Amino acid sequence: MSSKLEEFAPIFRPRSHAVVGASSDITKFGGRFLRVLLTFGYPGKLYPVNPHESDILGLKTFPRVADIPESVEFATITTPASTVPGIVEECLAKGIKAVQILSSGFRELGPEGQQLEEQIARTAVRGIRVIGPNCFGVYSPAGGLTILPGGELPKESGTVAFMSQSGGYAIRGANRASGLGIRFSQIVSYGNACDINECDLLEYFYEDPKTKVILGYIEGPREGRRFFHLLREVCQSKPVIVWKGGLTKGGARAVASHTGSLAGEEMVWEGLSYQTGAIMVNSLDEMLDTALALLYLPTYRGRRLTVIGGGGGIGVAAADTCERVGLSVPLFSLELQRKLTTMVPSVGTSTRNPVDVGSPFPRPSVLRSVLETVLNEDGVDLAIISELFMSVASHMVRQTDNSALNVRMDSAVAELAQVPVEVKKRLGKPLVMVLPVEAMAPEPEHIEAEEARRKVANYYLAEGIPVFLTLERAVKALANIIGYYERRDAIASSG
Amino acid sequence: MSSKLEEFAPIFRPRSHAVVGASSDITKFGGRFLRVLLTFGYPGKLYPVNPHESDILGLKTFPRVADIPESVEFATITTPASTVPGIVEECLAKGIKAVQILSSGFRELGPEGQQLEEQIARTAVRGIRVIGPNCFGVYSPAGGLTILPGGELPKESGTVAFMSQSGGYAIRGANRASGLGIRFSQIVSYGNACDINECDLLEYFYEDPKTKVILGYIEGPREGRRFFHLLREVCQSKPVIVWKGGLTKGGARAVASHTGSLAGEEMVWEGLSYQTGAIMVNSLDEMLDTALALLYLPTYRGRRLTVIGGGGGIGVAAADTCERVGLSVPLFSLELQRKLTTMVPSVGTSTRNPVDVGSPFPRPSVLRSVLETVLNEDGVDLAIISELFMSVASHMVRQTDNSALNVRMDSAVAELAQVPVEVKKRLGKPLVMVLPVEAMAPEPEHIEAEEARRKVANYYLAEGIPVFLTLERAVKALANIIGYYERRDAIASSG
Repeated sequence: MSSKLEEFAPIFRPRSHAVVGASSDITKFGGRFLRVLLTFGYPGKLYPVNPHESDILGLKTFPRVADIPESVEFATITTPASTVPGIVEECLAKGIKAVQILSSGFRELGPEGQQLEEQIARTAVRGIRVIGPNCFGVYSPAGGLTILPGGELPKESGTVAFMSQSGGYAIRGANRASGLGIRFSQIVSYGNACDINECDLLEYFYEDPKTKVILGYIEGPREGRRFFHLLREVCQSKPVIVWKGGLTKGGARAVASHTGSLAGEEMVWEGLSYQTGAIMVNSLDEMLDTALALLYLPTYRGRRLTVIGGGGGIGVAAADTCERVGLSVPLFSLELQRKLTTMVPSVGTSTRNPVDVGSPFPRPSVLRSVLETVLNEDGVDLAIISELFMSVASHMVRQTDNSALNVRMDSAVAELAQVPVEVKKRLGKPLVMVLPVEAMAPEPEHIEAEEARRKVANYYLAEGIPVFLTLERAVKALANIIGYYERRDAIASSG
Repeated sequence: MSSKLEEFAPIFRPRSHAVVGASSDITKFGGRFLRVLLTFGYPGKLYPVNPHESDILGLKTFPRVADIPESVEFATITTPASTVPGIVEECLAKGIKAVQILSSGFRELGPEGQQLEEQIARTAVRGIRVIGPNCFGVYSPAGGLTILPGGELPKESGTVAFMSQSGGYAIRGANRASGLGIRFSQIVSYGNACDINECDLLEYFYEDPKTKVILGYIEGPREGRRFFHLLREVCQSKPVIVWKGGLTKGGARAVASHTGSLAGEEMVWEGLSYQTGAIMVNSLDEMLDTALALLYLPTYRGRRLTVIGGGGGIGVAAADTCERVGLSVPLFSLELQRKLTTMVPSVGTSTRNPVDVGSPFPRPSVLRSVLETVLNEDGVDLAIISELFMSVASHMVRQTDNSALNVRMDSAVAELAQVPVEVKKRLGKPLVMVLPVEAMAPEPEHIEAEEARRKVANYYLAEGIPVFLTLERAVKALANIIGYYERRDAIASSG
């Protein structure tokens, strides 16, 4: 086992865990944290620490860390800032390998807090690793660790790592990813980064064989030079997506009062992307979409797309949207157009690219033959099937008011929905689905339609086909990953 | 009644309506159209026309238009392209005032289709108005008209008009708007625009006292000069949002095969925005978001925002997002900061702007006093409450596993959710909510959470507070409307 993997084992898979500040009172942070940990199913030994209680949720509780009779690997600290330096000292004395400090009230508050934080940092160098303070800590399904309020986050591990200087985005990222086909190896909310920072985490995720894609929400890297060199090295083998918070003036000011970091400037960060290969994004959604594209389209490279839609306007918007981010929707050859013309209805369609199959609900045989034909073309790197009618809710069937047709409609939709999966299995070429939320109203029929949409989305994800909510989001993610491969290869060949 | 309103009355509120191509067979377009019209509840006289049937859905059916014994105001034509010119002639002879031609197979297909279309246009000038061909036609709740498959679209009229050269975006716009607090006066899918084009529609919506905001998805305006002058005039009193399809090379090509239009170039269209005041957008979502902002924030003008969130990272991203679109999140005065500091928890918060109230689930009293205080500031034009925890699904309550607390949590969320409504009523200053979809998974608890989110969103919309799905979308819409007011006023003062 290499150094970083060993060093981080007590953090990501601790066999024993003290929760300092645990409480029976779940209006308290430490009370909620312990409960969430139990809900999630932490498998190791758990030691609540609180001088005023002897039993919390059936667990024997110790007045101080020193009173725990067995050895302990990891501790979570949730007590007020002023008490934390002393507790970290006690943890070091107890032989605890690492702590996460969830409490706030440190550098982000000014000089007084900064002193407390520096005290902790001085303890850390004497032999205990620290995550935080002012953070949400670690979500590590392999180790049974979760962040608040993540008691019901997925228990399966995945291949995406996410380091976040924002606790809010750590939990939001975990929640949003769960319907997007993304699972995490670890999420680390590391807050003020008084000891473990983005460089340490980057080194770990680089070594970790399970992690394939690395995400970072970063406000101000602690060690700029080290971060730059590391990023450049890591990006050669694993894509790193960086969402830099505080690139604008107002954002930079907010950074200072959030994690007390120095934010840096937009231009410097753009240069960083070219020099290291990293993918820069501007929002949580863009970060997750790009991760999804990286995971599900490992063989996709080129910029030449075809978009298959039902309705001419959708094709027009698709072409505009692709070209705006630097992807092309090249005009098909006359020969290919002629071939496709024999497959689609004779009116209300287009075969020039985008391909308009005439209706958002085409015959399955039409979609199948069109899709196979375009994916077999050398000049097409990827196909997007945009906004076809792949799911059906009962009120839509009811609208037709004809029971024989209803059955046909139900099975026709199911048959249509299977086409992309069958074609992908046969041809193995990159394929993307766009399945928009059709209506946002709370009425039962709209909720049911959304449920049906999500089920179909899950079906595609399970079959290895990425699904995006809008065409704009899909093509931005594709442009991001193409840009990454190009920069990575340019950096590699420049030595 | 002025000329345009009178001229369009037979189109938007026809007292009698022939459906040429109606059929008992609902696999046929004309069959589905008639059924949807009945479902929607068309209140006038309805005359199916089909030489091969005598009764469709209990309605007496006529072989030809000429055979209808009473006078008829409006006709819908769904028969194959080659038959349409003759049918339009028959309609003219019958004294029908206007027709919508849903059939495709005209100019968008090439010279032969173009000839058919020109024949129709020649008939039109002799005294019958034509919408289409190659379109979805008219949705006009006041007249009981709807487009396919819109049998269950809202029956209430609204104040937004939407003219769309794409039928697909007409129906999608109608569907998506229904959960966004937008209702339409009319939606007109006008396809190839062989007679009635965007200029005619713009004139009508300009005169129509019910229409406050005008949306257009436009591929290639038929009369460029007239369109330009009209747009400039209309924008002085009613905002017009234009989504121009086909601004890129690929998009322009797609336009040609969709509605046979000439698409024009991006630069020309950007100039158009400055010269006329119109708001240019790039997607359906951006168009609807901007319409929502215009409708719900009639008094909002300035560029100085405050963002209230729970969690520092969210404030950082908020500031970045605002400044990227030219809105500012100005640093609060020390005096204001001091005042706010007495209201929020002492750690894990920020009062500099964005305001971080420390948690996505703050005490209602904290949110109330912060919101009132910042909205009372002269230097704040609008407040955004971003991603606070305003709705609760039962699984979230269950997670806490404590029934006394559950009741408290349920009522605490309800109390928190009411705060923005109360403050808005008291102060009347512009206020925006951002309520993101938290997870996209199809599991029952996620569906339930989304239902709860939508209900809370509807509650705000009913109280006149606009709701956006993401902060990015909210601030883009705000920047769009501010830009409109500024251009409009500059044009007005330049004469």
